Amino acid sequence: MRFACLLFSLALAAPAAAHNPTRIPDAAFDTATRLRAQALADGTAWQVLESLTTEVGPRLAGSEADARAVAWAKAKFVELGYDKVWTEPVTFPKWERRSEHAEVVGDQAQPLVVTALGGSPGGTVEAEVVRFADLAALEAAAPGSLAGKIAFVDYRMARARDGSGYGPGSRVRSRGPSTAIGKGAIGYLMRSAGTDSHRMPHTGMTRFDEGLTPIPSAALAAPDADQLARLLALGPTRVRLALDVGWNGEYTSQNVIGEMTGASKPDEVVLIGGHLDSWDLGTGAIDDGAGVAVTMAAGHLIGLLDRRPARTLRVVAFANEEQGLHGGKAYAEAHAGAVARHQIVAESDFGAGRIYAFNTSAPDHARAAVDRIAQALAPLGIATSDKGGPGPDVGPIAGKGAAWAWLGQDGTDYFDLHHTPDDTLDKVDPAALAQNAAAYTVFAYLAAQAEGGFGSAPAPATQD
Amino acid sequence: MRFACLLFSLALAAPAAAHNPTRIPDAAFDTATRLRAQALADGTAWQVLESLTTEVGPRLAGSEADARAVAWAKAKFVELGYDKVWTEPVTFPKWERRSEHAEVVGDQAQPLVVTALGGSPGGTVEAEVVRFADLAALEAAAPGSLAGKIAFVDYRMARARDGSGYGPGSRVRSRGPSTAIGKGAIGYLMRSAGTDSHRMPHTGMTRFDEGLTPIPSAALAAPDADQLARLLALGPTRVRLALDVGWNGEYTSQNVIGEMTGASKPDEVVLIGGHLDSWDLGTGAIDDGAGVAVTMAAGHLIGLLDRRPARTLRVVAFANEEQGLHGGKAYAEAHAGAVARHQIVAESDFGAGRIYAFNTSAPDHARAAVDRIAQALAPLGIATSDKGGPGPDVGPIAGKGAAWAWLGQDGTDYFDLHHTPDDTLDKVDPAALAQNAAAYTVFAYLAAQAEGGFGSAPAPATQD
Repeated sequence: MRFACLLFSLALAAPAAAHNPTRIPDAAFDTATRLRAQALADGTAWQVLESLTTEVGPRLAGSEADARAVAWAKAKFVELGYDKVWTEPVTFPKWERRSEHAEVVGDQAQPLVVTALGGSPGGTVEAEVVRFADLAALEAAAPGSLAGKIAFVDYRMARARDGSGYGPGSRVRSRGPSTAIGKGAIGYLMRSAGTDSHRMPHTGMTRFDEGLTPIPSAALAAPDADQLARLLALGPTRVRLALDVGWNGEYTSQNVIGEMTGASKPDEVVLIGGHLDSWDLGTGAIDDGAGVAVTMAAGHLIGLLDRRPARTLRVVAFANEEQGLHGGKAYAEAHAGAVARHQIVAESDFGAGRIYAFNTSAPDHARAAVDRIAQALAPLGIATSDKGGPGPDVGPIAGKGAAWAWLGQDGTDYFDLHHTPDDTLDKVDPAALAQNAAAYTVFAYLAAQAEGGFGSAPAPATQD
Repeated sequence: MRFACLLFSLALAAPAAAHNPTRIPDAAFDTATRLRAQALADGTAWQVLESLTTEVGPRLAGSEADARAVAWAKAKFVELGYDKVWTEPVTFPKWERRSEHAEVVGDQAQPLVVTALGGSPGGTVEAEVVRFADLAALEAAAPGSLAGKIAFVDYRMARARDGSGYGPGSRVRSRGPSTAIGKGAIGYLMRSAGTDSHRMPHTGMTRFDEGLTPIPSAALAAPDADQLARLLALGPTRVRLALDVGWNGEYTSQNVIGEMTGASKPDEVVLIGGHLDSWDLGTGAIDDGAGVAVTMAAGHLIGLLDRRPARTLRVVAFANEEQGLHGGKAYAEAHAGAVARHQIVAESDFGAGRIYAFNTSAPDHARAAVDRIAQALAPLGIATSDKGGPGPDVGPIAGKGAAWAWLGQDGTDYFDLHHTPDDTLDKVDPAALAQNAAAYTVFAYLAAQAEGGFGSAPAPATQD
């Protein structure tokens, strides 16, 4: 992340003197105003989201449903009137979840609701549990002090509109297991990285440092973390953790891409999108069916205009974001030679809450156009901001020099649902979803009609 | 229920002329005022609830944890200073839940979150699903029309402070399976009788009419009912329902009873209590750990007084309420000859929400005492009411003529959690629990100190 920020700073610092000011024609602004009203009253995003989450349902990358999701996306782009629809392969290791179970054993025997962390190995361990209040406490444990034990990191993630609690929360997931192995642990449990208090564990990827032998690693639902902490306060507590999960070969999925071909500058591309895969516990409504639906709907609405905008609008449903941005990385590799043709990129992948903030990496010469886009977004309750960055899947192409925009969503409740069984359609507010679609429609249309660019240029070579 | 109401009406209508007016001495009222303040500031109910839900956890009647719950209750009564502690046997058929699974099969394959209804047989069925909006629609289906199909009743239970939505909601559970069998169905699914929208199915008992061959029967979590309804709207949908559950012999549990022996009228009993068993999905915090905790705490607080009240306070932790009021029925049978010695009975079994209403079956001659109790409860936000009735487990003894009181709890959110995995300690508000304990303390103390009775008398013989 720090590396990515450095790159964006370099992009911002690139000489801009050679550029004429980028501007939005008045006619385009007027059309955007009409599109905004139309999108707010339009049900396309909801219909697309309902279709994906109902007909495909959960779609773990590499699962049988992954292929169904790809077929669904291709068909949906066609149905929505996109001019070109194609796929690009994305290959990744396949991780499977077959069953997962945890229980306290002994005099206080009782089940615990857990879910395996993505990337965990399978296996059954039964051992005494040692609790740590946070990752730092685990890191401070003496090497070997957890020999034969299960480590339990009981860190409570903080709620925040911008999701800032997820950084420390998800580090407990990504770094905890390897840290625990370093202390001798044979299993790993964590309080879910989430903000709810339901019997809903939050899954998500972990990774094991090279050279370590991975250990079964799982997240407890918040009430189960509470329970385990109370039991441990009463005395030694043994837990049996049985995971039937693990890596199983490779799988090739697809980034699914739909385009509305630009009327006058078809080689210049405004890219928006979301990721098509979901975790398997829910139906991926907010993560990230909403992002796919909102951006597909935006392209559809723009496609209904009498005339295509000047530039091509490309909507990408990325493959396998959840397990390591595989779709976004594959896209950036496949299009590495065309970075400068990506006028600007933006991804929706932070739920289905209302968009409240707008920012972009665009340089000074695009300021007038950016201000005009902000002006068109303002009636949606969206203010300009100096926060944010590209979404996860457009991060790699932005890292190669593409300009990015950020349409920041209210994530106050996002981590109540994120990566849980409760990520289902009923949790989405249709009005908020329409507001999102309106914002992406306005942004994408104006970016595609802008005269001049937003600063995309191949980034200087780095020692990545 | 109608039968029970009739009995209570008969009790109310019993001749009262022979009684002197029942009254509360001023000194008792003053003591109750002090007890109320003490109880509101006291953590005993919370500590008891935390202990039960943590150390025993889920305690399905007949399970290994049932015996641990009985041992816990005996020890807790002793720890809380009760004068006498004993158990009385309760025998019932044992129902076990081992595993449960449902999934849509075919082109839209996906798991569905279900839980078996208590009393369901095990078995695996895979069939096309037929949806009915409510029980009446299922009842209206032609005999044989569901041959080889799975019936799905998609009724949405209404939210209400008094829980009045649960009557029609739970009838879908109790009557649905037998009705479906009558139409030829081979499996039964229902939208959970609940008011939440989480991936939390609500379990609870069903019963099969005599002469029918029971069919696997389960409740879908609300989002899964939504999903199945959407899939059915798109076309024929097949579901595989696999339940490994069922009856397995008999079990003898115990009603666990603690008494504070009356100082001057030890043979006269004020009975309060809750039920000790819980469903297995959660830890039974609101159903009914709270009832056990509140009433145990009330007796404890009364026991801390310098002098016991005149009458005996009996607190009962009833066995196996969930599967058919087995503990309450056994209690009423065992004490059938002592109905008149039960001055008044009350049970807490409607969650852990604040008590807002008070009512009693007491006749006119006890009006002054009832008004005085109401006056002592009023500062807790409790108003007199003409609603309510005895709790489920004291229903049988009330049916035999014992006077009852009702301390009505706010159940607005009760059916969000009731019978789900989410019935856990974190859902209980400690302040509301203390308010409950204060109300039971005040009520029980004043009833035990009242001069005169509340109308208990053996009910006339009936043709039950």
